Amino acid sequence: MDSSWEASVTDSINAIYLLFSAYLVFVMQLGFAMLCAGSVRAKNAMNIMLTNVVDAVVGSLSYYLFGFAFAFGDSNPFIGASYFALKDIPSSSYDYSFFLYQWAFAIAVAGITSGSIAERTQFTAYLFFSFFLTGFVYPVVAHWLWSSNGWLSPNSTSLLFGSGAIDFAGSGVVHLVGGIAGFWGAIVEGPRVGRFDAFGNPVKMRGHNATLVVLGTLLLWFGWFGFNPGSFDKILVPYPHMVDQGNWTSVGRTAVTTTLAGSTAGIVTLFGRRLLVGHWDAMDVCNGVLGGFVAITSGCSVVEPWAAIVCGFCAAWVLIGLNILALKFKFDDPLEAAQLHGGCGAWGLIFTGLFAKEEFVLQAYNSGKTQVIRPSGLILGGGWGLFGAQIVELLSIVVWVSLTMGPLFYLLQKLGILRISSDEEVAGLDISCHGGYAYDARQEESGARFYGEYLRMQQQ
Amino acid sequence: MDSSWEASVTDSINAIYLLFSAYLVFVMQLGFAMLCAGSVRAKNAMNIMLTNVVDAVVGSLSYYLFGFAFAFGDSNPFIGASYFALKDIPSSSYDYSFFLYQWAFAIAVAGITSGSIAERTQFTAYLFFSFFLTGFVYPVVAHWLWSSNGWLSPNSTSLLFGSGAIDFAGSGVVHLVGGIAGFWGAIVEGPRVGRFDAFGNPVKMRGHNATLVVLGTLLLWFGWFGFNPGSFDKILVPYPHMVDQGNWTSVGRTAVTTTLAGSTAGIVTLFGRRLLVGHWDAMDVCNGVLGGFVAITSGCSVVEPWAAIVCGFCAAWVLIGLNILALKFKFDDPLEAAQLHGGCGAWGLIFTGLFAKEEFVLQAYNSGKTQVIRPSGLILGGGWGLFGAQIVELLSIVVWVSLTMGPLFYLLQKLGILRISSDEEVAGLDISCHGGYAYDARQEESGARFYGEYLRMQQQ
Amino acid sequence: MDSSWEASVTDSINAIYLLFSAYLVFVMQLGFAMLCAGSVRAKNAMNIMLTNVVDAVVGSLSYYLFGFAFAFGDSNPFIGASYFALKDIPSSSYDYSFFLYQWAFAIAVAGITSGSIAERTQFTAYLFFSFFLTGFVYPVVAHWLWSSNGWLSPNSTSLLFGSGAIDFAGSGVVHLVGGIAGFWGAIVEGPRVGRFDAFGNPVKMRGHNATLVVLGTLLLWFGWFGFNPGSFDKILVPYPHMVDQGNWTSVGRTAVTTTLAGSTAGIVTLFGRRLLVGHWDAMDVCNGVLGGFVAITSGCSVVEPWAAIVCGFCAAWVLIGLNILALKFKFDDPLEAAQLHGGCGAWGLIFTGLFAKEEFVLQAYNSGKTQVIRPSGLILGGGWGLFGAQIVELLSIVVWVSLTMGPLFYLLQKLGILRISSDEEVAGLDISCHGGYAYDARQEESGARFYGEYLRMQQQ
Repeated sequence: MDSSWEASVTDSINAIYLLFSAYLVFVMQLGFAMLCAGSVRAKNAMNIMLTNVVDAVVGSLSYYLFGFAFAFGDSNPFIGASYFALKDIPSSSYDYSFFLYQWAFAIAVAGITSGSIAERTQFTAYLFFSFFLTGFVYPVVAHWLWSSNGWLSPNSTSLLFGSGAIDFAGSGVVHLVGGIAGFWGAIVEGPRVGRFDAFGNPVKMRGHNATLVVLGTLLLWFGWFGFNPGSFDKILVPYPHMVDQGNWTSVGRTAVTTTLAGSTAGIVTLFGRRLLVGHWDAMDVCNGVLGGFVAITSGCSVVEPWAAIVCGFCAAWVLIGLNILALKFKFDDPLEAAQLHGGCGAWGLIFTGLFAKEEFVLQAYNSGKTQVIRPSGLILGGGWGLFGAQIVELLSIVVWVSLTMGPLFYLLQKLGILRISSDEEVAGLDISCHGGYAYDARQEESGARFYGEYLRMQQQ
Repeated sequence: MDSSWEASVTDSINAIYLLFSAYLVFVMQLGFAMLCAGSVRAKNAMNIMLTNVVDAVVGSLSYYLFGFAFAFGDSNPFIGASYFALKDIPSSSYDYSFFLYQWAFAIAVAGITSGSIAERTQFTAYLFFSFFLTGFVYPVVAHWLWSSNGWLSPNSTSLLFGSGAIDFAGSGVVHLVGGIAGFWGAIVEGPRVGRFDAFGNPVKMRGHNATLVVLGTLLLWFGWFGFNPGSFDKILVPYPHMVDQGNWTSVGRTAVTTTLAGSTAGIVTLFGRRLLVGHWDAMDVCNGVLGGFVAITSGCSVVEPWAAIVCGFCAAWVLIGLNILALKFKFDDPLEAAQLHGGCGAWGLIFTGLFAKEEFVLQAYNSGKTQVIRPSGLILGGGWGLFGAQIVELLSIVVWVSLTMGPLFYLLQKLGILRISSDEEVAGLDISCHGGYAYDARQEESGARFYGEYLRMQQQ
Repeated sequence: MDSSWEASVTDSINAIYLLFSAYLVFVMQLGFAMLCAGSVRAKNAMNIMLTNVVDAVVGSLSYYLFGFAFAFGDSNPFIGASYFALKDIPSSSYDYSFFLYQWAFAIAVAGITSGSIAERTQFTAYLFFSFFLTGFVYPVVAHWLWSSNGWLSPNSTSLLFGSGAIDFAGSGVVHLVGGIAGFWGAIVEGPRVGRFDAFGNPVKMRGHNATLVVLGTLLLWFGWFGFNPGSFDKILVPYPHMVDQGNWTSVGRTAVTTTLAGSTAGIVTLFGRRLLVGHWDAMDVCNGVLGGFVAITSGCSVVEPWAAIVCGFCAAWVLIGLNILALKFKFDDPLEAAQLHGGCGAWGLIFTGLFAKEEFVLQAYNSGKTQVIRPSGLILGGGWGLFGAQIVELLSIVVWVSLTMGPLFYLLQKLGILRISSDEEVAGLDISCHGGYAYDARQEESGARFYGEYLRMQQQ
């Protein structure tokens, strides 16, 4: 045995861990598709599922060609510029498994935004925006945080405020980006026809299939086990001066904090909405669980399990509160995506600045080296460095996405290619753009009538 | 290289194996949700899916706070009392990955029981019973069998009958517990309105969506690959005196026995029901497959593949027989959960007592050490020790669950908070408790009508 | 530490990799079930889902008893003859994990064919054909290609044309076999009642549920990550003279080529069909993505990512073209299975003969040993050896499956047990053979009516 055998074992173990995590993250695409389909009206189900599939297939090519290069290429703290079309991959830094894992993240972003502009957007406009968001806007933010030379990175050689921002699996990079983009899309498009009546009161527009919503939510939960614990990238990293502890411990703990945050947010939403609306609402619980996941995504690797419960508790109220606000301001987001991914994502960044534990920060970002000193959560006495960096990340993302996606939506609107006509909207996107509805149950009924007559004829 | 590197490799490999197994077991929650939703009438679909989501979110908190402590804490052979709220985790015995794996098991139990009392239970009562079952009744049984100081454990220092009971992945601990709890729930609540006509004849109450039943069944199959093979906890355990064999071999064999038992039970049910009812019934095949899985769950790691076929063959007839009995005694369990999880779970415990192979018992419980002598399957000449312990486990679980869950259901019934009113039952739980139905297909039709008129107007 | 510890680590890592890949391949069974269910009319949904479940349960027993022996047993280049009923497993060549992985492949084949003959086939005939295909026809082809003594194998001691055919994960072995079988089934049965009108013009027969189609497609995508990258069987295989590269690199690259081929085919189908039919068709995109996957399956491990894009681009046009041809010749395949799996599978074999890169061929088939010389892609200057072998494989499979499955279908037809009566067909298979429809939405409506009256009565 020699050191090359050791390297092979290490590479194999980490590749299995990262590849299967990537596969799980891909499941989130399926989860989004089902969640979105179930949450819209039947007449738009085909449209929104197509957008989810298109996110994946268009995103694959754009991320392969340049998205990955923008995000993880070497160059400057703002944007990367190498590895176009996987040139020089595998390199000493990145293997194919890393690309695949990041690809699965990239295609998720546009899925979030598609929820906000559901049921009223032209498919051509969708192609433009999805391509621009997945191929450019998102990779740039990923570069800031996750590339070792990003200006907000907690791994770079010159750390912002001596800390860098901690956005472990992307409450900000993924969810806030998608949520803010969705916010601008929904603002520019305006509410769906009939969402608010003549007096400005909201009219409930129920999704057409709660089963799909539950299916989608639980698939997203399953996928989140790839999203959060998978973000360590490597599992075989022992911590010095610790017996039997290493990244494998932190990976497990991350799965636990993720579970607890989502569960707590779900319970709080269950009882909170019971008090507010008077019945036990399954759809609200689903969104609550997702809100908890979105919020813990930033700090999942650096907080204690009890802190994850705090995180989920607050995330539920952030979501409930923003939904009330949205109604007040006649903001119509069919999937609550801006509130959920934007609002809870923002809370997640703040939460990490408050509750990150120094020991875990050193594990996640310095392989557990205890001789290093790093800022950690403000409430736990870790100073202002991390908290400040988190706020800077939050503001930077809001500004960047607003300055890029806002004008894009505005331009598409001005060109008349963003929103469908109200006639088409009332008829539904599926019949007007996609050749027919998603469902056809008539055949069964005509079959049944025929069979009845057939049996009668045989009896005669 | 030194021994600490070896330890790190071992820990990483075992963590990957256990964590991804845990993720698969979580998929069973999704499988249950879809199976249950499809098996009830459309008017109760939202309700039963909410109960499945609530099992997960409430179970997460209760299992974190005390369930895991009751099950795996140190203390006495009856109940554990350490590790509350994950205190002292990671310990030398348990890492976070082990907690997560056990958490995924715990939330499955209440899901089983929710099937038995479906379509007629108040949601508040559900919250009580789910909390009590997941947080107390189940963890205690898990402690008996799976904690090293449990009185039925096959790993303890003083083995019952020199053997201890073998319930590898929980035919008894999980399925029999859930099934017996469901049995008492269904007995106390009585049949659904209209389930038996004035003459006591059963009226078929078809589930509303067979697609969901098939989806749920195959998701459960997928998840069972985490449930059974995953229960080895560690995969990197070489067997002494064997070339190239270790837990990895047994893990693979366990996946094979699981597959063969489920498949055989499915085939037998297909042909058996064809003979009994005259048509090929997809729903029966699904339940048959699940019955085979439930039965093999106890002995999956310690029997030969051919024995798994015997196991599945009998499981199918147990299920068919109990379903006939249930109709005779006017016992109404919408998901057949008591028959399937209770009946096939009980058969699984007996089966293991009959067919366990000594070599495999030593592999699963003594890391393949051949100098140890252990009782094994009665039919294979392994003596009465194991068979006796299996019977003791079976009876103990029936008594324990009956003494705890029976009174609980009785009390809730007496307090008038268990069963919904018959008016609400006829209307359906969704409209009366959850704010509306799970489906809304009207929009599509109105959209189609509008589009027809819209096209006509354009033509004029 | 000693060499036995190294062997244990290697075995554990490879077992995890192969087992979890097998679990993913099993998900494809679920994906097929949902895709098929959604693509047929509601009155036949139960039937086609039952056939998918039956493929799995019947296939488990037949593959355990003799299928695996035919495929991987030792004996002659045409068919294997050892390991019946897993005798002598685990052997020095194969562990249980390998059996499970191959089992998951075997049960997929009949699922492909079931699509071609959907909505008009007697269930008894289905049992015959499924048993014959999974238990004999498919394993023989698998033996040719994947057993080390198969006559087409790229691993054998006497390589055909000094090359052997490269069908890494089975564009030919799995998809072409299933597609050709389906072709003959559909030819013998003829089109569904009403598929072509009196003038021979096709009448659109829409599937009843597009959501299920999207769900199935994305589940298949998820499962393909087990199908293609998993086909390396072992991940811990370092390549000599390479730093940090080994099978883990190739496994990741295979996941990337798979993703890019499917995505490209999806995009091309999206725009291609937009030009041809005038709307954005989600169902076509789903089939396009699957066509890309089918095509890349043969060469996924031996081509560059850019070549995968070429592969997907052509696969889309193969599928579009064959679908146009099918309409012209009044060929009715409800799932397009013959076109998709047969056509794109055939293209995949040719593609590999054109674009395989020598370096990657050596990695996939000679563990990266660079001193060996092997033929590779014709276009890349790799000579005619590989291309010739690919053509021979293509023709051999077409002939073999035609000679076995063609007569079987013809015989079943002559015996009058293949196709259902046209009365039963119009009524639907579910009501005539399976005891009822898959869906029952009436309950909800009657519940709603009741609730309305109930509320009115309470108000009085």
